Amino acid sequence: MTEKPTGTPSSDGSVVTPWQVTGAVDYDRLIATFGTTPLTSTLVERVERLTGKKAHHFLRRGIFFSHRDLDQLLDAYENGQRFYLYTGRGPSSEALHLGHLIPFIFTKYLQDAFRVPLVIQLTDDEKFLFSKHDVSSHPLESYIQLGRENSKDIIACGFDRERTFLFADSDYIGWLYPNVVRIQRAVSFSQVRGIFGFQHSDNIGKIAFPAVQAAPAFSSSFPHLFPTKQQIPCLIPCAVDQDPYFRMTRDVAPRLGYRKPALIHSKFFPPLQGAEGKMSASDPNSAIFLSDSAAQIRKKVNKYAFSGGRDTVEEHRLYGGDCARDIAFQYLCFFLEDDDRLEDIREAYSTGRMLSGEIKAELVRCLQPMLADLQARRQAVSNADVEEFMRIRPLIVE
Amino acid sequence: MTEKPTGTPSSDGSVVTPWQVTGAVDYDRLIATFGTTPLTSTLVERVERLTGKKAHHFLRRGIFFSHRDLDQLLDAYENGQRFYLYTGRGPSSEALHLGHLIPFIFTKYLQDAFRVPLVIQLTDDEKFLFSKHDVSSHPLESYIQLGRENSKDIIACGFDRERTFLFADSDYIGWLYPNVVRIQRAVSFSQVRGIFGFQHSDNIGKIAFPAVQAAPAFSSSFPHLFPTKQQIPCLIPCAVDQDPYFRMTRDVAPRLGYRKPALIHSKFFPPLQGAEGKMSASDPNSAIFLSDSAAQIRKKVNKYAFSGGRDTVEEHRLYGGDCARDIAFQYLCFFLEDDDRLEDIREAYSTGRMLSGEIKAELVRCLQPMLADLQARRQAVSNADVEEFMRIRPLIVE
Repeated sequence: MTEKPTGTPSSDGSVVTPWQVTGAVDYDRLIATFGTTPLTSTLVERVERLTGKKAHHFLRRGIFFSHRDLDQLLDAYENGQRFYLYTGRGPSSEALHLGHLIPFIFTKYLQDAFRVPLVIQLTDDEKFLFSKHDVSSHPLESYIQLGRENSKDIIACGFDRERTFLFADSDYIGWLYPNVVRIQRAVSFSQVRGIFGFQHSDNIGKIAFPAVQAAPAFSSSFPHLFPTKQQIPCLIPCAVDQDPYFRMTRDVAPRLGYRKPALIHSKFFPPLQGAEGKMSASDPNSAIFLSDSAAQIRKKVNKYAFSGGRDTVEEHRLYGGDCARDIAFQYLCFFLEDDDRLEDIREAYSTGRMLSGEIKAELVRCLQPMLADLQARRQAVSNADVEEFMRIRPLIVE
Repeated sequence: MTEKPTGTPSSDGSVVTPWQVTGAVDYDRLIATFGTTPLTSTLVERVERLTGKKAHHFLRRGIFFSHRDLDQLLDAYENGQRFYLYTGRGPSSEALHLGHLIPFIFTKYLQDAFRVPLVIQLTDDEKFLFSKHDVSSHPLESYIQLGRENSKDIIACGFDRERTFLFADSDYIGWLYPNVVRIQRAVSFSQVRGIFGFQHSDNIGKIAFPAVQAAPAFSSSFPHLFPTKQQIPCLIPCAVDQDPYFRMTRDVAPRLGYRKPALIHSKFFPPLQGAEGKMSASDPNSAIFLSDSAAQIRKKVNKYAFSGGRDTVEEHRLYGGDCARDIAFQYLCFFLEDDDRLEDIREAYSTGRMLSGEIKAELVRCLQPMLADLQARRQAVSNADVEEFMRIRPLIVE
């Protein structure tokens, strides 16, 4: 449970803040409201050309749909300027769910495709400061511990050990601090109130925190990782609800003499119950966790996944299923890599040849081996591996 | 120059905040307004009894005039419970002036008399966050450097190397951070606005900073200095304008399961121009710096020290000088240790036997050797000494 600053619903009734995503989000409208740039197929093709690899299906399918200055970052890359990736996680539940995987899967693809270093922030401080739980039952230590647990799931995603630095704020803050205070000095209460909706009753840690999430977007926050004195450009893959943090970051960058980070935004991963809002760890029936067994996956998909199918088999055969609202199909778009197979399923389901139970079975067959594989890799992550990813050391920058 | 949150003048027209001291301060009224306790002669005698030493003249002369829970701290001390001292400095000018010396002189006395450990905070972050200077001319680094310079003056005061830890926030924040976020979570914007007068236009670093000054008042902020798991009580000697920080600290302490720090407050050291406000480093003619030469001391005292003498020698002989307004006499109260000699001067000056030029000469004779001595000791402080005082290590607690 997180205490949510009040978000103002947009005209379609949806609300998107770093703490709240509700309603059916109109992503075109979000691009206009947030002032970001649509991620065009031309840009995706350019990524393919520069990396010499087929674009990730998250790009091909518009799951990452929006960006800021990605074109400039690619210009620089083309001129030999390497960048680094920055993503993160707020450790709020013991096991990550499928929605949490999206930025990590995509970040791993970017790291491999561009062969660039990566920093991953665990915001244990944020989760403590924004928690609504009682301090006595959920002390700071519990969030630090959740961060340690989560780090194993993150490492299991397969990041390049020589190019990846994983850090918890509670541990690394000493190195971030110079940039944190520089950013804090450049941002007023009025500004964070405007961006995040903070109130007078909010604690002063919340009010100051945005600077802690902003600091890793500047390479000088990592003097030992990037021993060069030159600034290294930063690319941040994140769900679009995190954009306000980085809008603020980009606003202050020039005043600090820093380069603005580039961003690439994903859509939200929907909860099992329907294609609105985003998956939340606080409702276990709305989420499939990385730790769920094959039987739990099957049960959750069959029991809770919102169906776009018709009320009767007869009607379904006649009119077909609604892929736009069918959670099984939505999830397959995220996780089924084979484009042809996905198109077959879409065609079969929307024409009524495939029934709701059958498309759910497709999803179960897709998720079970994927999660079994992740679980096996997580099992193999030792405490020593975590230490190594968290060790302050120069990262390989080609 | 510091951007000052607006302080509300009390009914005598004086203003006392951590950033502003103006007007003639009525200390009895301040005790009532702030809700502190007068430091009685009974308590001073108790200090003498417990330490087996004559009380410091700052205590005997009421320069430290107020406290919070000092009696309880002494109860615990009498029962064998040792405490630690915490004081600090905001590094804002290259050389300290006489006013800055007061808490350090007194803290050294307390350390020697009670044989207790001491932590000294250099708030380079605060001075950067509250600075009105342009960031380009006064970057964070300049405040870090001022802290290094100031640390030599502080060490020259003669603190016990085995019992003293000196730290800069920019350097030590990683260890303070767990308590900083715990404190931040317990304090709202409304509260810091009420205590410090922060506005919406204030930067978010200022708003969050009070937690950084509060954290060292809890012994768990120093796990390597005090390896015991038990809480060690804290005594904070400071000028009374710092009380708002520690009122906030004391408010949150019970909610964090911590003991409230005890406080002992000094009056302000007046500027050369008169017995109102406090000495300020930003007006070099209002201040005598620790780096001033013998000639500069003589010149500043003779030229700028406000005189309580009469307009003509004849009138002065007839009516006598006004010790309460005479800066030379005020300074002698701070720095002339010999009680009998001070009483002789008071008597001679107030009856007109001693002239204004003569009492100024007394002050010059008192200050010149004192500062020459400090300068010699400062000269002897090496960078290695600074490193040693700043090294994270167990302190001797008897």
